[in-house]
Amino acid sequence: MTFSFELLTEDTHTAARAGMIHTPHGDIPTPVFAPVGTQATVKTLTPTDLQELGATLILSNTYHLYLRPGADLIADFGGLHKFMQWPRPILTDSGGFQVFSLEGLRKIDDDGVTFRSHIDGSYHRFTPESVIAVEEKLGADIIMAFDECPPPQDYDYNIKALARTHRWAERCQAAQTRSDQALYGIVQGGIFADLRAQSAEFLAALDFPGYGIGGLSVGETKAQMHEMLEVMHPLLPRHKPRYLMGVGSPEDLFECVARGVDQFDCVLPTRIARNGAVFTQQGRVNLRNARFAQDKNPIEADCHCYTCRTFSLAYLRHLLIAQEILALRLTTLHNLHFMLDTMRRIRQSILDGTFEEYKNRFLASYQPVKSRQ
Amino acid sequence: MTFSFELLTEDTHTAARAGMIHTPHGDIPTPVFAPVGTQATVKTLTPTDLQELGATLILSNTYHLYLRPGADLIADFGGLHKFMQWPRPILTDSGGFQVFSLEGLRKIDDDGVTFRSHIDGSYHRFTPESVIAVEEKLGADIIMAFDECPPPQDYDYNIKALARTHRWAERCQAAQTRSDQALYGIVQGGIFADLRAQSAEFLAALDFPGYGIGGLSVGETKAQMHEMLEVMHPLLPRHKPRYLMGVGSPEDLFECVARGVDQFDCVLPTRIARNGAVFTQQGRVNLRNARFAQDKNPIEADCHCYTCRTFSLAYLRHLLIAQEILALRLTTLHNLHFMLDTMRRIRQSILDGTFEEYKNRFLASYQPVKSRQ
Repeated sequence: MTFSFELLTEDTHTAARAGMIHTPHGDIPTPVFAPVGTQATVKTLTPTDLQELGATLILSNTYHLYLRPGADLIADFGGLHKFMQWPRPILTDSGGFQVFSLEGLRKIDDDGVTFRSHIDGSYHRFTPESVIAVEEKLGADIIMAFDECPPPQDYDYNIKALARTHRWAERCQAAQTRSDQALYGIVQGGIFADLRAQSAEFLAALDFPGYGIGGLSVGETKAQMHEMLEVMHPLLPRHKPRYLMGVGSPEDLFECVARGVDQFDCVLPTRIARNGAVFTQQGRVNLRNARFAQDKNPIEADCHCYTCRTFSLAYLRHLLIAQEILALRLTTLHNLHFMLDTMRRIRQSILDGTFEEYKNRFLASYQPVKSRQ
Repeated sequence: MTFSFELLTEDTHTAARAGMIHTPHGDIPTPVFAPVGTQATVKTLTPTDLQELGATLILSNTYHLYLRPGADLIADFGGLHKFMQWPRPILTDSGGFQVFSLEGLRKIDDDGVTFRSHIDGSYHRFTPESVIAVEEKLGADIIMAFDECPPPQDYDYNIKALARTHRWAERCQAAQTRSDQALYGIVQGGIFADLRAQSAEFLAALDFPGYGIGGLSVGETKAQMHEMLEVMHPLLPRHKPRYLMGVGSPEDLFECVARGVDQFDCVLPTRIARNGAVFTQQGRVNLRNARFAQDKNPIEADCHCYTCRTFSLAYLRHLLIAQEILALRLTTLHNLHFMLDTMRRIRQSILDGTFEEYKNRFLASYQPVKSRQ
């Protein structure tokens, strides 16, 4: 097994941790934010762009790649790294979240899930065994167990789904044939402390090399998400990385690192960029706003990304209003730089023992988009 | 006047010429192909990309920039170079071609043209004087006179339009106030040798620093276009650059350089790229074709562009089929590299005295898309 996790520092004021994940395709300093490359590309960017941004891990989606271009094709190219020419670590999800989001197009049983493709309506079936086979063909450094993602507020449903997720976790472990991929189990349990605790303990006993935390940031409040992280923190193995799936916003990075999370991924920075929204230290702004029409300043004066080093707000707004493709690339570059750079600063502050101070300073300035607190 | 043209070599077998245009923003080796940046951006690419491709001149459109974001805004930024952060030479057209293409939305009189914006239907008026004022605000190194672009086959109309174009050329000259921009006159006359000759002689007498050739590649045959170039060649001043506007395809570069053209611009390489079509030494191919689905080769094995150095045909096809934005950028990079590299080879072959040989070799291999010959 060429995968390992070094826990380097634990913060004394919070549950924040700094560490290093070692993988066959290089090291991942943690905590880490992974840009999302759903279809074997982080939208608008080249692998060179991502390396220049300092990305150390990207996520790609098993469900999408399984449907198109197909796992066999990617295997024939020697795996996803070679297919998309990304030389650094990759994580693939299990497709569970996507499949369970196909409302009306999927049917769950204890053995697996039958679903219809969102592309052409064709029928397909995922089981723990078939998903692991696909993830082995894709060849990511970190692969995720196939889990069920139930509605977070339905206690009875969560009890049933959790039992299935746990059986499937064992089946994924048993199905794994490659020794060069780290298979993470995924803790579920909705917004229920007893189920989260039960899940963390059950999966900890299976001794996975890392743990995904699923079923959060799917409609519950921030307070509920934070409470669940606090419940799981002491129960998950201290020397294994914890990956909060599908999270988050800039403020989430601070709040969840403070609760022991080592790994994140989220489409937010790239998705909002394509709508013209960019992160700043004061919060999110939309560059289509007329107040930027004549503004000679960059998005952020002290940002070191290519977009801010090169272009004015007025030019970026012009590109957006004129529906120019370059706009989407430049806003994506900025937003990913913002997330990756913020995470680098978070990590350094943990190593320096100043994380709580940095967290307070950032959150005092950053105005989150209104959401349920 | 900081603009000048050095004629370095004239081919002995054809009318091909190699030279160097000097401008306030740097030198332009000729013959030259200028990528088109209609709205102050060459679609999908950054200025850094364009510099790495070796672009020495880009074109931007006065009509589009006048409407959005507006010439005053760009002037307030210190001109187009600073607004779009392109440090090398820029050429702006006069908007004539765009305005005369607004069928049903424009009214021509001897003084100018009244037209409606394609964006919001608002009324605007271009005259030779107002267009020069806009081009001076944009601040390109080479600016084009305001001309009328009539249907190429209508003799009677062309006689009237030519008289107007000639009066407007004089008025543009008189209206010019900046000495750091080279104003090119534009030869018109449709597909009529007598009118083309008359226009070339009339404009030559006005002593412009360079000459545009307008009204070609707008529906006439290739043979007619070539004939017109042959008519104008001996009549245009030998020591001034000749710019064939809106042309062309790879095969056009060879045929028109052979007839004395020094400058080209065309949307073709960038436009077809966004539809998945790429140039190869054998002709144009569309990457959506199923035969590329499993192809591990690059578009061209000996191409040095980033796309060919990095990605397989199968990956490029996947990006196109999956409607990923990155696809458009990668095909654009390849097509512009193809055009710019072909032009660099053409220039070197003229300097080496091997142009005709290279032309024959290229055209023997390159299969043009069928068009009227």
